Amino acid sequence: MKKNREETIKISAEKLAAFVTETFRKVGVPQDNAEIITDVLIEANLRGIDTHGVMRVPIYIERFQKNLVNPCPKIKFEERMPSVLLVDGDNGPGHVVGTETMNRLIEKADKQGICIAGIHHSNHFGMAAYYTIIAARKDMIGIALSNAPANVAPFGSRKSYLGTNPLSVSIPTGGTHPIVADMATSRTSLAAVITAQQEGREIPENWALGPDGKPTTDPSTALEGTLLPMAGPKGYCISLLIDILCGVFTGALFGQHINALYGDFENKQNLGHFMGAIKTSSFMENELFLKRLNQEMEEIRELPTAQGFDEVLLPGDIEYRTRKKREKEGIPIGKEIVTQLEEVAEKLGIETDLFKQI
Amino acid sequence: MKKNREETIKISAEKLAAFVTETFRKVGVPQDNAEIITDVLIEANLRGIDTHGVMRVPIYIERFQKNLVNPCPKIKFEERMPSVLLVDGDNGPGHVVGTETMNRLIEKADKQGICIAGIHHSNHFGMAAYYTIIAARKDMIGIALSNAPANVAPFGSRKSYLGTNPLSVSIPTGGTHPIVADMATSRTSLAAVITAQQEGREIPENWALGPDGKPTTDPSTALEGTLLPMAGPKGYCISLLIDILCGVFTGALFGQHINALYGDFENKQNLGHFMGAIKTSSFMENELFLKRLNQEMEEIRELPTAQGFDEVLLPGDIEYRTRKKREKEGIPIGKEIVTQLEEVAEKLGIETDLFKQI
Repeated sequence: MKKNREETIKISAEKLAAFVTETFRKVGVPQDNAEIITDVLIEANLRGIDTHGVMRVPIYIERFQKNLVNPCPKIKFEERMPSVLLVDGDNGPGHVVGTETMNRLIEKADKQGICIAGIHHSNHFGMAAYYTIIAARKDMIGIALSNAPANVAPFGSRKSYLGTNPLSVSIPTGGTHPIVADMATSRTSLAAVITAQQEGREIPENWALGPDGKPTTDPSTALEGTLLPMAGPKGYCISLLIDILCGVFTGALFGQHINALYGDFENKQNLGHFMGAIKTSSFMENELFLKRLNQEMEEIRELPTAQGFDEVLLPGDIEYRTRKKREKEGIPIGKEIVTQLEEVAEKLGIETDLFKQI
Repeated sequence: MKKNREETIKISAEKLAAFVTETFRKVGVPQDNAEIITDVLIEANLRGIDTHGVMRVPIYIERFQKNLVNPCPKIKFEERMPSVLLVDGDNGPGHVVGTETMNRLIEKADKQGICIAGIHHSNHFGMAAYYTIIAARKDMIGIALSNAPANVAPFGSRKSYLGTNPLSVSIPTGGTHPIVADMATSRTSLAAVITAQQEGREIPENWALGPDGKPTTDPSTALEGTLLPMAGPKGYCISLLIDILCGVFTGALFGQHINALYGDFENKQNLGHFMGAIKTSSFMENELFLKRLNQEMEEIRELPTAQGFDEVLLPGDIEYRTRKKREKEGIPIGKEIVTQLEEVAEKLGIETDLFKQI
């Protein structure tokens, strides 16, 4: 813990955001789009989802510089059916494509009760919860799915075909924060395996297979092999459904064909998302819905705890607490990420004393 | 295996269906509704999902006899928004409510692209996949969720609050059978724990908690405690979302308030379902969608296998194969279920030699 504290600095969300926006401006992203990408990243850091925060700045910058992502996309919304949008992201940043799509969905769902969107020609969109929270703020249930480059094996296989294909749903509660579910459909993330490798730790046997198709506890062997879906065949089903909805269904790439975010600097990603918004008052008056929901929430919080737990939480509670803390105390950034961000600043000719605390 | 074979008889689906329909007729269910309930049960047996097959006949009969389920419901469909139906099942059998709802959804989705339904005042609807397969036969992606009486603990708790809350999605493939995902969102079913208890086997440590909130491998202790959600906190999120959509959202009961199918002969269940249909041609021409989907399916089938597997399957493959086999060879019914069905026949004054093979 001590070591970590020494190697981490805390930066206010506002200052970090201003810096991050400037990096995107420097590579040709217009102000409004730069602010959207920044907001998705900073929101992830605030919520404690650091794997989807500012550590992504270097790769995003590199892909803009190599013309692999369109900084100023002309996103096309085609209303193919009254409650369905087909969205061509024009190879824009997933954050911009995702945000604009969710805003359209909210407008449409307000009239239709539900509206869904299939999105193709998009790129990595960061934390899926960002988009579903937009919906929850507007009395909508928000749904966001994405496919992703292959690093998860279908159940029974030893070869990566599916991505970690995230799934997020947010539900408005009328309280301080919505219920927010946001999960990779793999057992764990590649980042967790890499961390174990760096720290010389074994990984649990159900996380990954080696290239020989056998379960492995050695992170290096796992990195040559493939990750496993969560919950075995059930997670495989869910991950496959997400790939079909986001990729096969929309015209985006799917399965093993999706191009990597890291390491592939020749090809556009062309991944897909699937989003939806459901107006909560479609079924009953909002006030009654919120009353019933809060009853369920209170009943769950008051349940007796299992061994090893101090309290029973609702999805999104931990992230809300982290957000309150980091809004006040700043966002902790590790030494390695600081170094990477300083390199980005230098490369782009940005003068900043943001990282001088180390 | 030998023991099982001696204690099992095989009955043709048609003959078994005729008998089951007659049992429901005897307790006042009109012919059309009796046929629907029967079809859901027989389809479950044909697909090898025997826990949702004719073993449910005795409890359904008992609940009809005790006026806890309305054999002839007047189901009300309210179009509250252009793409949303609110369905009052009038305490009818879940099978009838579910089937009629999915048929309506398909009609509506044909015009809207997607339509969803929230259903309250319903009862146990059997195998969720039954309804999503109806949609898949009509070039629709079918979605069916249900809440259920509490026997699963929210993550971090030691007390049951959520049901095994099933989730099914079916996707048309243009081939012999759709992709069919159908899963409980708990780690395992109560039935599996009961079976382990009867056979004197231990259960895996991650299936259940004892009443003290500690993981247990003893099935008897587990049955006094609670089941765990699949995939830990992720399964808890999914199960909770299902309960909110099916229960809180629709006006049905939710969480711990849902009345038991077994053991409670005072109260109606009043559980809820949530269903949806999405027209596959909403996003691209059907022919192109099927071509892309079949490419994905073929690629997955051709992946190299993991240790312990002979082939890589798609969701629904095993059930399709079982169905082909059982259509030809008959449905295997264990001795215990045979005895229960004979008792039902006797009680209702039905003469049958269907079970004389034992």
